[in-house]
Amino acid sequence: MSDRFLVVGGDAAGMSAAGKAKRDDPDREVVVFERGDWVSYGACGIPYYVKGEIADIEELQVVEPRKLVEERGIDLRRRHEVVAVDPDARTVTVEADGERYEEPYDDLLLATGGRAALPDAPGTDLEGVFAVRNLEAGRALRSYVVREDDAEVPAHPDAGSGDGERLRSHLRETDVERVVVIGANKIGVEMAEAFVARGFDVHVVEAGPHVLPVFGPDVADVVADHLRDSGVRLHLGTSVERLVGEAEAEEGTGRATEEGTGRATEEGARPAEGTDRVRAIETDAGRIEAEAVLCDVGVEPETDLAESAGIDLGETGAIRTDEFGRTGDDRVYAAGDCAEKRHLLTGEAVRWPYALAANRAGRAVGRTVAGRPTPVGGIVGTGVMKAFDREVARTGLDDEQARAAGFDPVSTTVTTITRAHYYPGWSRIVVHATADADSGRLLGTSMVGAEGAAHRINAVATALHAGLTVEEVGRLDFGYAPPFGPVWDPVLLAAKALGDELE
Amino acid sequence: MSDRFLVVGGDAAGMSAAGKAKRDDPDREVVVFERGDWVSYGACGIPYYVKGEIADIEELQVVEPRKLVEERGIDLRRRHEVVAVDPDARTVTVEADGERYEEPYDDLLLATGGRAALPDAPGTDLEGVFAVRNLEAGRALRSYVVREDDAEVPAHPDAGSGDGERLRSHLRETDVERVVVIGANKIGVEMAEAFVARGFDVHVVEAGPHVLPVFGPDVADVVADHLRDSGVRLHLGTSVERLVGEAEAEEGTGRATEEGTGRATEEGARPAEGTDRVRAIETDAGRIEAEAVLCDVGVEPETDLAESAGIDLGETGAIRTDEFGRTGDDRVYAAGDCAEKRHLLTGEAVRWPYALAANRAGRAVGRTVAGRPTPVGGIVGTGVMKAFDREVARTGLDDEQARAAGFDPVSTTVTTITRAHYYPGWSRIVVHATADADSGRLLGTSMVGAEGAAHRINAVATALHAGLTVEEVGRLDFGYAPPFGPVWDPVLLAAKALGDELE
Repeated sequence: MSDRFLVVGGDAAGMSAAGKAKRDDPDREVVVFERGDWVSYGACGIPYYVKGEIADIEELQVVEPRKLVEERGIDLRRRHEVVAVDPDARTVTVEADGERYEEPYDDLLLATGGRAALPDAPGTDLEGVFAVRNLEAGRALRSYVVREDDAEVPAHPDAGSGDGERLRSHLRETDVERVVVIGANKIGVEMAEAFVARGFDVHVVEAGPHVLPVFGPDVADVVADHLRDSGVRLHLGTSVERLVGEAEAEEGTGRATEEGTGRATEEGARPAEGTDRVRAIETDAGRIEAEAVLCDVGVEPETDLAESAGIDLGETGAIRTDEFGRTGDDRVYAAGDCAEKRHLLTGEAVRWPYALAANRAGRAVGRTVAGRPTPVGGIVGTGVMKAFDREVARTGLDDEQARAAGFDPVSTTVTTITRAHYYPGWSRIVVHATADADSGRLLGTSMVGAEGAAHRINAVATALHAGLTVEEVGRLDFGYAPPFGPVWDPVLLAAKALGDELE
Repeated sequence: MSDRFLVVGGDAAGMSAAGKAKRDDPDREVVVFERGDWVSYGACGIPYYVKGEIADIEELQVVEPRKLVEERGIDLRRRHEVVAVDPDARTVTVEADGERYEEPYDDLLLATGGRAALPDAPGTDLEGVFAVRNLEAGRALRSYVVREDDAEVPAHPDAGSGDGERLRSHLRETDVERVVVIGANKIGVEMAEAFVARGFDVHVVEAGPHVLPVFGPDVADVVADHLRDSGVRLHLGTSVERLVGEAEAEEGTGRATEEGTGRATEEGARPAEGTDRVRAIETDAGRIEAEAVLCDVGVEPETDLAESAGIDLGETGAIRTDEFGRTGDDRVYAAGDCAEKRHLLTGEAVRWPYALAANRAGRAVGRTVAGRPTPVGGIVGTGVMKAFDREVARTGLDDEQARAAGFDPVSTTVTTITRAHYYPGWSRIVVHATADADSGRLLGTSMVGAEGAAHRINAVATALHAGLTVEEVGRLDFGYAPPFGPVWDPVLLAAKALGDELE
């Protein structure tokens, strides 16, 4: 029997590792166990599927399973769940079709991912309450709120809301008119955009004082205004106390429903007939009526399998790994949302459940097990998103994170323009930048604008990787042409302004 | 008399220096001599003025002269030409209104800029032959080819070609139907876009084998195809032998006209009545008929004043300066297109006549003369441009430059997509990347795509400043969201592919 590399989980990290290991060492036996139906999918596209810009959920799949098996020679086993690992015996126990079997490994990768957290409030088990992290859940959500015939949704419409009227009339077939999003994080805001495009009355409820907390208050406030202008009703500083079902809403008894059996969450299962459906949420600022609720209150690492196998978790609650993605057991690796990442600016282990980090760590593990030890790389906390007609981006540490990490943060916010002042179509862009007063090092930047924020942030991310000072960033030789920016690019302008603050 | 800072030239470098010096040291006397009418203008916007997207040439001015004088307290003297410098006496001789006078200085900045070169061929003095580097020349060009009443051109139309029919009918008032652009460099290609939008029959003649030589062949070929698809007739590998005037064209005598007195070039002067007008160019591949010719064959530093004052030029032909922009005379600075820049990857002095470098060097000199010595910074060769519906970008060294600089270049070209594969509107982007085989350092990158190239290049420029290896670039924590890129951003994908080449 050849040297066996087993992978638990067939999404970003798992499939990247399997593909890279097989490519670098074609003779190696590579087996991927995926408990669901989908492998290597783009969960980040779910909001656009819900919005209707992506017609079929299948489009989100990056590589067809058939290709993985036939062309790449990976032994892909879908609907096979690894239920136990024995690190001493180097075996896994697999459950499929109601049967259990064992498989030996030489190297094992745990790429079990993350699961969407639910608010700590009664009623999240009501029908119509969703927390979306995988394709099954995305499909369940869309079919709950739209109940469409897929064929009626135009594939790739040019404008997201162009078919608003048609979608709206379509909508009337369901009883969903109002949607509450709990948590104004990335997915929550993207989903709010999708729901508005679908014609719903959309409320976003956020416990903190700002939307998108990791983007910092100055950027968040610009986004918040834009969300309101786009038709979203924001409830900031508002805590959810419980979710109210139809039975209670009709009876007015105040009895919290307990009998729901079909949590329409990760599993994506449609609730059984007769379960109670959500009709409102109760907050500390009053009741908001809604026929559907989408929760975006965080991602939790899926660590049950690791824990039961005695693999160490870190303080973050995710699986602890070294720079090569190796866990406490040197034949067991972990990568993706279930594993810790290293923040390069603080040196601390963090949870960072994003696609690129998962893909990169998976690929590195694939190379490592194929014989070339490859670091999984650290993160500097770069995140970008589209919020209706705004690009929102951040990287590094915000003021608060910088202070917590022992830096002496100095920051500034500049407002400038996205193109030369005379070039048609320019718009405003707001850039917040933070530096360390002692060293002069740039620590972080966030920005928001109608264009140009999403790619501009990567130059700052690169500067953070390299540990550049604000002065060095101000001297970077960026490109300039009137259609793409002013002579002093917003990033350079922010560095100039921050340099003045540091003096 | 207070400490006097005199500035020769009122564009990017000169005005940046004057403004910064005055801001940092408000008591200082700052005098700017500008021989023309315009100060602090965006010459990079001229193609869009010619195209008609910018109605009035005044819009290209960054700061109103009145504001400079009244609000900032700068002694701005337009139509004042500095004709001599005496470094020993620390005086300049100024000519204005036919009179000459002397002014003493403590610090002097030469920001005399550059002038557009002309092809080395007979006939460039014909009416209708333009080489555009300043606003006067831009205005002369537009009024020659369009002869519009400015008021008839819509200000900031949403789409550049939306008014094509109206502009075209308007055009018929002039006799210009065909335009030749000599030189397929940045301005030449931008002007070709403007001329096509105006409805002309546009030919671009380039002596080299590729358009946009500094962007490298792989990117250039993509641009060339796009130019052809956009209606430009490209003549690559074609040398201009002479320009043919109307007199000869009608007489068929083959006599090259010599009597032209009104070179419609830098001065922007309209030729006197009766001078001969261009009607064709002769190339080594035949004759091309045209009623107007735009030359883009390079920029030459304006060094006459420096040379006559005994200030050293470097091997590049531009004024030699140290890291603070100081010339061989320690009270005389030079900045902008007339001065050399330092290339950070080769350590060599280069000519780099671009706006950001000029602004930055001017600002640094302003700070230095105000008492805080500030390096002007080097360049890594970043350039971006719009070519019709493509963004084109480059930074660093291409293979040939890398070899010439003593590196051992290895390069690769990847084609990928600009958004997630499932997100509507993605398009192809081509990225060429070059590394040094010995050190693994990334040396340069160029790219072209319908979107996302112009800002992406700045991350690479940052990596070049920091001296990152290809492997380090491949591990950069970039942002990802489906509307803005694939999980592996094109820059990261190119680094991965280049890493494979290096192994």
